[in-house]
Amino acid sequence: MRIDLVPSIEYINDNALKGKTVVLIDVLRATTVITTALDNGAIAVVPKIEVKEAQDAKVENCLLGGERNALKIQGFDLTNSPLDYKKNIVNGKTIIMTTTNGTKAIHHSVRADKIIIGCMLNGKAIAENVTFDKRDVSIICAGTGGKFSLDDFICAGKIIYDCMALRECELEDFAATAFMAYRDNKANVLDFVSRASHYKYLLSLGLEEDVKYCFTEDIMSIIPEVVNIGGGIVIRK
Amino acid sequence: MRIDLVPSIEYINDNALKGKTVVLIDVLRATTVITTALDNGAIAVVPKIEVKEAQDAKVENCLLGGERNALKIQGFDLTNSPLDYKKNIVNGKTIIMTTTNGTKAIHHSVRADKIIIGCMLNGKAIAENVTFDKRDVSIICAGTGGKFSLDDFICAGKIIYDCMALRECELEDFAATAFMAYRDNKANVLDFVSRASHYKYLLSLGLEEDVKYCFTEDIMSIIPEVVNIGGGIVIRK
Repeated sequence: MRIDLVPSIEYINDNALKGKTVVLIDVLRATTVITTALDNGAIAVVPKIEVKEAQDAKVENCLLGGERNALKIQGFDLTNSPLDYKKNIVNGKTIIMTTTNGTKAIHHSVRADKIIIGCMLNGKAIAENVTFDKRDVSIICAGTGGKFSLDDFICAGKIIYDCMALRECELEDFAATAFMAYRDNKANVLDFVSRASHYKYLLSLGLEEDVKYCFTEDIMSIIPEVVNIGGGIVIRK
Repeated sequence: MRIDLVPSIEYINDNALKGKTVVLIDVLRATTVITTALDNGAIAVVPKIEVKEAQDAKVENCLLGGERNALKIQGFDLTNSPLDYKKNIVNGKTIIMTTTNGTKAIHHSVRADKIIIGCMLNGKAIAENVTFDKRDVSIICAGTGGKFSLDDFICAGKIIYDCMALRECELEDFAATAFMAYRDNKANVLDFVSRASHYKYLLSLGLEEDVKYCFTEDIMSIIPEVVNIGGGIVIRK
């Protein structure tokens, strides 16, 4: 099995995704939120690019979540903090969500055979899911503002590292670089991440607990999958 | 001073280079060849994109050098092996050179204020040259076939590491990633590079000595600079 890595949304080549499994990563914080929400009993997460689209899609038993510039959107029920998505809040609910990068990344990946959602929380489960599949894997880092972000990169490295522990995979150069970055920094991932500009931005907003949570490894085993239902994109386990 | 890193030619944003110093890296092997040739007394290196352009530019006291798919071009004097560019061969000569990526990268970087040529051989000298300059720095990895190549990435990491040893620079995320990759692997850079697909390709051609030479650090102090003379691009020290 071959693994390649797309450094950020702006580098997605739609055609190169055909026949592959895409693992989508926006560790700070969209894919961490999605994984947490589904693990805590949300029925589904519905990603929307625009705020108005999200508002228009709200029906009964739905919660609106998301961010703009990492901040809560006026009138929304939940922010983009995974700590908001507790069991007593999201269980049995559908979450309609709009985030700056994560949602866009999903919409750019629709040509893949299969799109699953990865983060540190479910990294090992993702590796177990893809490693023995016949499909090649393209890991897509959402990035920040469309640009490469080293928090997503080290999370990709963790998933690739977990894949390599299960089976020797063929890694293209960027995937190999991420693999070695995690290998060399796994004892102290937060130190590595502390050089990320987006990490510094979240810290400036007082979101230290969020960041710590986002870099907790392997506490969930669900595989959120993007599916197309009635022409609309939905993420469910 | 701020340092950013462009992962390969396909990601060069011409407009973002205005006002900056570009450090161009194609460590396997174009920028290593250029640095070696000039250090061994070549008057100048003239980069050309097409083989025919190179042939048409040949005049007295010139040598033709370069590669296609890492192999010698028919009728050329020199290959793309830096070991070809010995003092007794290149001293006092102008080298007209065409390589797959390195030459293209130069032609894509012309909007920068200044373009200099970096490799492992002159890494520390490059760092000393740019660190106290008022201009921000954009390090451009040529890559292989336009794609990210981890040999260029670790060389970029070495130059950034040497800059950081002189002064705390502001690093964008990709530059910070390269910095940490070198920091974590500087005791054994060849091990790191052995995962590069281009490294494996060169080894398959029996070019192990070339690769070892290309990863020798800080044996030269020249700063090859790209200049525009009479409408033509020339590299000289």
